[in-house]
Amino acid sequence: MEINELPKLHSDFSVDCVIFGFDKGELKILLIERAEEPFKNFMALPGNFVYDNEDIDGAAGRILRELTSLSDIYLEQLYTFGEVNRHPQGRIITVAYFALIKVKKHILNPQVAFARKAEWYSVADVPALAFDHSKIFEKAYKRLQSKIRYQPIGFELLPEKFTLSQLQQLYEVILEKPIDKRNFRKKILSFGLLVELDEKQKNVSHRAAKLYKFNKSRYNNLKKMGFSFEL
Amino acid sequence: MEINELPKLHSDFSVDCVIFGFDKGELKILLIERAEEPFKNFMALPGNFVYDNEDIDGAAGRILRELTSLSDIYLEQLYTFGEVNRHPQGRIITVAYFALIKVKKHILNPQVAFARKAEWYSVADVPALAFDHSKIFEKAYKRLQSKIRYQPIGFELLPEKFTLSQLQQLYEVILEKPIDKRNFRKKILSFGLLVELDEKQKNVSHRAAKLYKFNKSRYNNLKKMGFSFEL
Repeated sequence: MEINELPKLHSDFSVDCVIFGFDKGELKILLIERAEEPFKNFMALPGNFVYDNEDIDGAAGRILRELTSLSDIYLEQLYTFGEVNRHPQGRIITVAYFALIKVKKHILNPQVAFARKAEWYSVADVPALAFDHSKIFEKAYKRLQSKIRYQPIGFELLPEKFTLSQLQQLYEVILEKPIDKRNFRKKILSFGLLVELDEKQKNVSHRAAKLYKFNKSRYNNLKKMGFSFEL
Repeated sequence: MEINELPKLHSDFSVDCVIFGFDKGELKILLIERAEEPFKNFMALPGNFVYDNEDIDGAAGRILRELTSLSDIYLEQLYTFGEVNRHPQGRIITVAYFALIKVKKHILNPQVAFARKAEWYSVADVPALAFDHSKIFEKAYKRLQSKIRYQPIGFELLPEKFTLSQLQQLYEVILEKPIDKRNFRKKILSFGLLVELDEKQKNVSHRAAKLYKFNKSRYNNLKKMGFSFEL
């Protein structure tokens, strides 16, 4: 079917989700493969129309649940894209969301007819996406790079227990630059937000490193008192 | 007319603008008085529906131009509000924008039928607003308080030429706390972003202070090289 033969929809709105994960030292995003026109066979951000009786935040949560079976995911609104010609089927604006998940958790196949499968892509290898989704992805990536410096959101991408090397690697990969190990450790430990566990890595070939946990409730308390996280 | 007698609109979207100004030591926002139901006689954020052939950013710019006759205003998208029951006339989501203007510039009367007049309100005296506009205003105020610390947007609210005392007062009013004068001056001057003019205040009863200008092109160059503004 040609694009100009598609039925025109009336003025409407959708949500699209940029879902980041961190796996084997790489930053990834979760994409779906479209099984229908427009943009058949293209990869796209997971998204859908918003039901009449559904809040937009609720629609974003639903799309994440349909893909991941998880409901306790870090999710925030990113930006609304509303250029006149952004969608070939009519005047459709989309509210983009930004999500951070721990990739080891189970990803289901998409539960919507227009999506053939879901797949993780390294952010370095993201292909040209359907609609204006490449632009949305770029905006989300910039938001992540900027926000990770002044809010402790990076922990949402790590396993619950992590080493300081894993944490540093996460920052290096997202900020796309090497970080001095000694300064990084000194600074991150100075906040008092990491709990040193009485536990070490298992099944590693090198010397097992200490594991840490992020103390979220302490961060929330400090924040109320005017504390600023800054790396 | 009772609210439940109003005609139902179909699913649609609007833009609303939170317009901040700074005048006589007070932070203000520009509100309109509604001349029609729903929320007749309530104050509201300036806003309107988006035309079919208009980008959402374009709609926000149009609303500002209609109210202020200015087109070079600092404007950014704030957040999209899309709860199911936020509007009594149907499923209408609104994309909120955040604007900063120099209040001495001319404000026109609103050019839309549903607005009786436009007026500046001190943020401390904002009345209960129409729709969910109080919530939108709160979000915008928090964004301003947070963003002014890491981006030099405060200058958009000052006259082109200002004294260091005016700049400090702006920060004190927005952040709602006193600031140490010596540290503030040292820090703000250390960035090299202010141009000291060969000119002083006029018509003041106290000793006239030096005037400064913000060097925006220098900031843009520094930013490209990785400089972070932080106060």
